[in-house]
Amino acid sequence: MRTAIARAEAARGTTSPNPAVGAVVLDRSGAVVGTGATQPPGGPHAEVGALAEAGERARGGTAVVTLEPCAHHGRTPPCTGALLAAGVARVVYAVDDPHDLAAGGAEVLRAAGVRVEGGLLAEEVRRGPLRAWLHTVATGRPHVTWKYAATLDGRVAAADGTSRWISSPESRAEVHELRGKVDAVVAGLGTVHADDPALTARDAGGTPRARQPLRVVVGLGDIPAGAKVADGSAETLHLRTHDPAEVLAALGARGVVDVLLEGGPTLAGAFAAAGLLDRVLAHLAPSLLGAGAQALGDAGVSTITGAHRLRVEGVTMSGPDVRVSAVPVRD
Amino acid sequence: MRTAIARAEAARGTTSPNPAVGAVVLDRSGAVVGTGATQPPGGPHAEVGALAEAGERARGGTAVVTLEPCAHHGRTPPCTGALLAAGVARVVYAVDDPHDLAAGGAEVLRAAGVRVEGGLLAEEVRRGPLRAWLHTVATGRPHVTWKYAATLDGRVAAADGTSRWISSPESRAEVHELRGKVDAVVAGLGTVHADDPALTARDAGGTPRARQPLRVVVGLGDIPAGAKVADGSAETLHLRTHDPAEVLAALGARGVVDVLLEGGPTLAGAFAAAGLLDRVLAHLAPSLLGAGAQALGDAGVSTITGAHRLRVEGVTMSGPDVRVSAVPVRD
Ligand SMILES: NC(=O)c1ccc[n+]([C@@H]2O[C@H](COP(=O)([O-])OP(=O)(O)OC[C@H]3O[C@@H](n4cnc5c(N)ncnc54)[C@H](OP(=O)(O)O)[C@@H]3O)[C@@H](O)[C@H]2O)c1
Ligand SMILES: NC(=O)c1ccc[n+]([C@@H]2O[C@H](COP(=O)([O-])OP(=O)(O)OC[C@H]3O[C@@H](n4cnc5c(N)ncnc54)[C@H](OP(=O)(O)O)[C@@H]3O)[C@@H](O)[C@H]2O)c1
Repeated sequence: MRTAIARAEAARGTTSPNPAVGAVVLDRSGAVVGTGATQPPGGPHAEVGALAEAGERARGGTAVVTLEPCAHHGRTPPCTGALLAAGVARVVYAVDDPHDLAAGGAEVLRAAGVRVEGGLLAEEVRRGPLRAWLHTVATGRPHVTWKYAATLDGRVAAADGTSRWISSPESRAEVHELRGKVDAVVAGLGTVHADDPALTARDAGGTPRARQPLRVVVGLGDIPAGAKVADGSAETLHLRTHDPAEVLAALGARGVVDVLLEGGPTLAGAFAAAGLLDRVLAHLAPSLLGAGAQALGDAGVSTITGAHRLRVEGVTMSGPDVRVSAVPVRD
Repeated sequence: MRTAIARAEAARGTTSPNPAVGAVVLDRSGAVVGTGATQPPGGPHAEVGALAEAGERARGGTAVVTLEPCAHHGRTPPCTGALLAAGVARVVYAVDDPHDLAAGGAEVLRAAGVRVEGGLLAEEVRRGPLRAWLHTVATGRPHVTWKYAATLDGRVAAADGTSRWISSPESRAEVHELRGKVDAVVAGLGTVHADDPALTARDAGGTPRARQPLRVVVGLGDIPAGAKVADGSAETLHLRTHDPAEVLAALGARGVVDVLLEGGPTLAGAFAAAGLLDRVLAHLAPSLLGAGAQALGDAGVSTITGAHRLRVEGVTMSGPDVRVSAVPVRD
């Protein structure tokens, strides 16, 4: 399953609106004879790729998949059919298909005599490669991670507006990796004016990665002439609205599942106020400014009991920075 | 040495301006026959207490001490004399005496034929029970820990000024424990006006601890009538100044070694600007406010390259809160 998860993780950002799934096929003796991951929309599912690689060696063997195999005809034929045709004796998967819990692929396979076990490392997959997709299936809108870099005292810029670089090279590298995995990167016009970010995913040397997320700029004004975000190096969408729900509806309609919101404070505040932040990823640099712009602008909170409450999922170091991942507590 | 460190840690807050030292005496066979810690000023040092407990069993045994035994007459006779009189064969200590590196207690003991080893767990003692005292010996001023509780976005109060309770019960309990270990707790008049804190060390049930730190209020105005900080439950000092250096000079003159600065933002900013923060202890609550007072006010920084840079010493959870301990990077 770890191999299947790694294949799924590597496919993130290329499969939306489909889930990034990984699969491994073992022969009768337990040897790995094929691996696969979801291909871009219209292409084969993970199981099909792994089975193709395995060929005849799949017969009597085991398929390990991060998501319950599908039993319905979509753009591609159902994976249950492929698994049965290949003659696998056993299927192990992590997460139940959230669409059809009753008559899902597991039941179809069991009815055909295949031994089926679900739930293996389910939590890891749920929080990892399937996180945004499961959220989208459940809520009908893309999953939003708000990522910001601030000082320990919560500032994202100094008094004079300077902000490069608050966070460490390690934190910046992580952001580029994240951009490479999501479907869309979103920023407000204020950030475009202040920082002129390219919003592309680049490697350590500054070279753009092969796959780029959709770049999204939110605001009523125009994107300034010559802005990097409009340099044609990746697709850019300008949404003339202030409403986060409208932003997500427009992105959802384009098949976007996983959104990285990079701020600034005004736009992030609007998302927080609308209850549309699904994860907060803070890179806190070990420094103090005592003045300057705040990480988060007006989020619709006037008194302490109205604070947007979160739960910390994980704290790690990103070089010298403290990296906090937190999710909303919704009651 | 772990036992000696624990004894030293337990004595913290009762020994200033002397260091909180712990000692353990082992007999010839290696069995613990005495433990001791520094007594309040004028009382015996740690070694003397441990030797008294050990009595004749110390002869030919080992003394384990967190600080190199003193060789000079202060308010009490030198510990080296007591160790020699007791006939210990071996002395193991953690941290070298910073006063007299050349002709310290180790040399005196060695010259008398005692086997002496220094440096055992020195770093742990340096960062633990001797931290503030070593700082004071080196710089001539008390050690200042700025402790604050903020939301992940750096706010210490909501837009309407409400702030109770931003941090978790676990974080608040830790603050009371800290207050019990320091010599003085300092707050600005703004905090006294806004929050009316008692600044006493209390246990989980709200009962004041046996030992209370000196309470210090900084500001030109008067302490409001009826303020808890002036309730007589512990000693209170009102310093009519805005200058952090003056605050520390006044406290140093009273034998204060270890200061807990509890803010607010204005006073903490002044300490940061003056380069007088020796440690920052942030309790970051997993919530977002998007408005309200900042953790740190004007700290004399106008541009990003002037930020007060820190190094993270440790990150732990304090209940649901992220607790970050950081120290200044001084170049
Ligand atoms: N450290 C970090 O992680 C980070 C990340 C991003 C930005 N920043 C910093 O943030 C600062 C920029 O702050 P900002 O608040 O101006 O950035 P912003 O949120 O990116 O942009 C605000 C602008 O976006 C438009 N907008 C979009 N949605 C809106 C809404 N719901 N309500 C109001 N306006 C909305 C408005 O432009 P129109 O009037 O044209 O509609 C508004 O002026 C810069 O200093 C930048 O360096 C830091
Ligand atoms: N969450 C936390 O950890 C925490 C801790 C403490 C406070 N707070 C919050 O902080 C807020 C109060 O902020 P604050 O900034 O007013 O508090 P403050 O720093 O405690 O008090 C400021 C006042 O102290 C005096 N002062 C002392 N040194 C000064 C200096 N160097 N420069 C200027 N004034 C100096 C001034 O009074 P005079 O004019 O009389 O001289 C000034 O008005 C409250 O909302 C409180 O809840 C939060």
